[in-house]
Amino acid sequence: MAELTKIILSEKDAPTHWYNLNADLPRLGVELPPPLHPGTKQPIGPETLAPLFPMALIEQEVSTERYIEIPEPVQEVYRLWRPTPLFRAHRWERALDTPAKIYYKYEGVSPSGSHKPNTSVPQAYYNAQEGTKRITTETGAGQWGSALSFACQLFGLDCEVYMVKVSYEQKPYRRVLMQTWGARVIPSPSPHTEAGRRILAQDPESTGSLGIAISEAVEMAVQRDDTKYALGSVLNHVLLHQTIIGQEIIKQLELIGADWPDVVVGCTGGGSNFAGLVYPFLAAHLDGRPQTRILAVEPSAAPSLTRGSYAYDFGDTAGMTPLMKMHTLGHDFVPAPIHSGGLRYHGMSPQVSALKEAGLIEAVSVTQNPIFEANQSFAKAEGILPAPEAGHAVWGAMSEALTCRESGEAKTIVFNLCGHGHFDLSAYDAYLAGALQEYEYPAERVQASLARLPQV
Amino acid sequence: MAELTKIILSEKDAPTHWYNLNADLPRLGVELPPPLHPGTKQPIGPETLAPLFPMALIEQEVSTERYIEIPEPVQEVYRLWRPTPLFRAHRWERALDTPAKIYYKYEGVSPSGSHKPNTSVPQAYYNAQEGTKRITTETGAGQWGSALSFACQLFGLDCEVYMVKVSYEQKPYRRVLMQTWGARVIPSPSPHTEAGRRILAQDPESTGSLGIAISEAVEMAVQRDDTKYALGSVLNHVLLHQTIIGQEIIKQLELIGADWPDVVVGCTGGGSNFAGLVYPFLAAHLDGRPQTRILAVEPSAAPSLTRGSYAYDFGDTAGMTPLMKMHTLGHDFVPAPIHSGGLRYHGMSPQVSALKEAGLIEAVSVTQNPIFEANQSFAKAEGILPAPEAGHAVWGAMSEALTCRESGEAKTIVFNLCGHGHFDLSAYDAYLAGALQEYEYPAERVQASLARLPQV
Repeated sequence: MAELTKIILSEKDAPTHWYNLNADLPRLGVELPPPLHPGTKQPIGPETLAPLFPMALIEQEVSTERYIEIPEPVQEVYRLWRPTPLFRAHRWERALDTPAKIYYKYEGVSPSGSHKPNTSVPQAYYNAQEGTKRITTETGAGQWGSALSFACQLFGLDCEVYMVKVSYEQKPYRRVLMQTWGARVIPSPSPHTEAGRRILAQDPESTGSLGIAISEAVEMAVQRDDTKYALGSVLNHVLLHQTIIGQEIIKQLELIGADWPDVVVGCTGGGSNFAGLVYPFLAAHLDGRPQTRILAVEPSAAPSLTRGSYAYDFGDTAGMTPLMKMHTLGHDFVPAPIHSGGLRYHGMSPQVSALKEAGLIEAVSVTQNPIFEANQSFAKAEGILPAPEAGHAVWGAMSEALTCRESGEAKTIVFNLCGHGHFDLSAYDAYLAGALQEYEYPAERVQASLARLPQV
Repeated sequence: MAELTKIILSEKDAPTHWYNLNADLPRLGVELPPPLHPGTKQPIGPETLAPLFPMALIEQEVSTERYIEIPEPVQEVYRLWRPTPLFRAHRWERALDTPAKIYYKYEGVSPSGSHKPNTSVPQAYYNAQEGTKRITTETGAGQWGSALSFACQLFGLDCEVYMVKVSYEQKPYRRVLMQTWGARVIPSPSPHTEAGRRILAQDPESTGSLGIAISEAVEMAVQRDDTKYALGSVLNHVLLHQTIIGQEIIKQLELIGADWPDVVVGCTGGGSNFAGLVYPFLAAHLDGRPQTRILAVEPSAAPSLTRGSYAYDFGDTAGMTPLMKMHTLGHDFVPAPIHSGGLRYHGMSPQVSALKEAGLIEAVSVTQNPIFEANQSFAKAEGILPAPEAGHAVWGAMSEALTCRESGEAKTIVFNLCGHGHFDLSAYDAYLAGALQEYEYPAERVQASLARLPQV
């Protein structure tokens, strides 16, 4: 009998708490500057967020408890796909001819195919607990929108998804998935909101943008007492919910007596799957385990961690959200249309940004074609077709493994395969046809956007 | 801690042998008539199949050994996704308000998203062992073609897939998946074969059919010494490979001390996922376990088991294959364009047909809209979006569960969710729009085709 391929954690050994990085920031020597009011530029209190989020989530946003219990109804839903498998990439290691040991956590087994339900489920749960009837959100390619649609359905909430119109029209499958789970999907800009009507008045043919969709979703939440808003990344409470990923990995590695990882690799867009992967390794080091190198891989087209400024900026394009101190390319910078739609964001989670500033994590950026090459190499050996976003982590792990081939070191590499590519096959088609465009660091556009950072 | 949601079998407890129904046919009182030569109408020997299949598979086709060992290299690949999870449908049971206990085996976790790799992997393995360089096959919607592409890649074989032209053009995503795994995908009819050229000479605009694609794939295999052909259902050795499904289920039910199932439900097209599910339950009954009701669910548009004749007929439209005694709608009957492409076949596996004749299994047929209703009900409760084909089993399980609601009986129901619906969202779109056409039993067309059955 060969060494295990899939390391499976039983449901009774699943983590029962989320790990809250905020509790450990002082010990890590990390300072997390507070969010500021977009008008007054003064630090905001939790009450400012009350029109948008239920109190339980706002409390999690500012909590300094180290572990926060996962409610049993949330754990019950998690069991539909969690604990997720940790794979030892035996076949890919042989294909890469590397002495490295590669493990990958596979979050694509969730109903919507990514890590996003780890947070959409508790967000829907807490909203339902506090009497919310409806949740609004925005979605681009549809990963987050489908995860929230799934979660709302489970807790009897209406879900209203403002979907960027060009995606609504060109990529109907994610929309259909959301509708199958009962969500109402609205092409944005829409005539239902002030923000949407303003855009349509200027340009009736507008194909929309994530910034506009956010404005519409927020407006609809603020207007109605029974309606709240939900976000799929960036905020502390969202990252908190993802920490089950890394906690499960540590238990799974312990289960087989594996070496402690030398390097852990995640892709970064807003930072949530990355945080979920790596925060528990930071905690474990504080608790006496060896230090692990932590590597973030981001797209060259939206390189906030590697090329952005660490500054106060808005979370949305229109400048309606609180100001957050983060790595940013400027809130009006619109990344090139790469196929990793989930990573096309101008900013980075404040927590992840602060870790980067403190030197606790490394970051690199990479263009599209190497990502798809890495994904195809992986799919040919391991079977699973990764999402382009997840491919950034695949590429990072492959680079580390190939370095080991050169050096002869048998390092232990762990990465998070945060989603499958079943809805990204048109991107693979373009790649196989050699038609995938490369977008390098757009220096001048970033400079222009950074010049318009808000003065604080 | 609630009762388990996912019952996971560890890799070390995975079945090491396939179960061969042929060994038990005498004890079951079932006679399996031999295949006949299409020309002479005389029983054919294994050597007749040698141009198409490697000897190891031909031996399995006629073997009467009860258990056949799964080669270690095949087991190693199986571990990429096997053992697959068995789920207890807690949430769906509550949604249906039924006292029944519903379990579903989920085969959609395989790299290509269905049960098909259970047989494509050993087929590719045995071909590689015997020096085959290339495997040809046909595919309609692409489930089988993608499973074989994946398997060929793993064992260093070229894969040539003749894909029905209308699907090649209208459903590019499965094609891209095959190409990502390295397969050559050729729209059929093609100019590369005699069969293709003949069709194109008659009709240069032909959109193809599964029958034509089979003819092309078989022709290309017969012509070249280094090339064999592979089939994704119907034949004994294909069904044999699927028996790991039912064997795993029995182990998983034993693991939690579950009641022995009252009824086991599978969908039927050619019969392979159904056989893989139910054969081990037939074997277990012979070995002293209680009898289980076995229910096949097929589409009303292609109701071979419920409305076909039990007669000798060709496996393909053109009449080139050996004659097999099976439930058939006539080899030139072309089923209506239902979205369950994997079930659009005129015949039924000879083994499954013989079981039906012997009264060991039941069968029902159902139209499209009830299938999609059942699938949506399931997806809203359990998260997973089933393939339309798999939906026939979902519908069957739901019907049984609703009967239990009426009677108050807490029966144990097991079904096989043989694939996910990620590549079927255009079908869901049509369903949600109320645009899904119903196709009832096409009595006159079936009668006309049956009138053309070959005389034996």
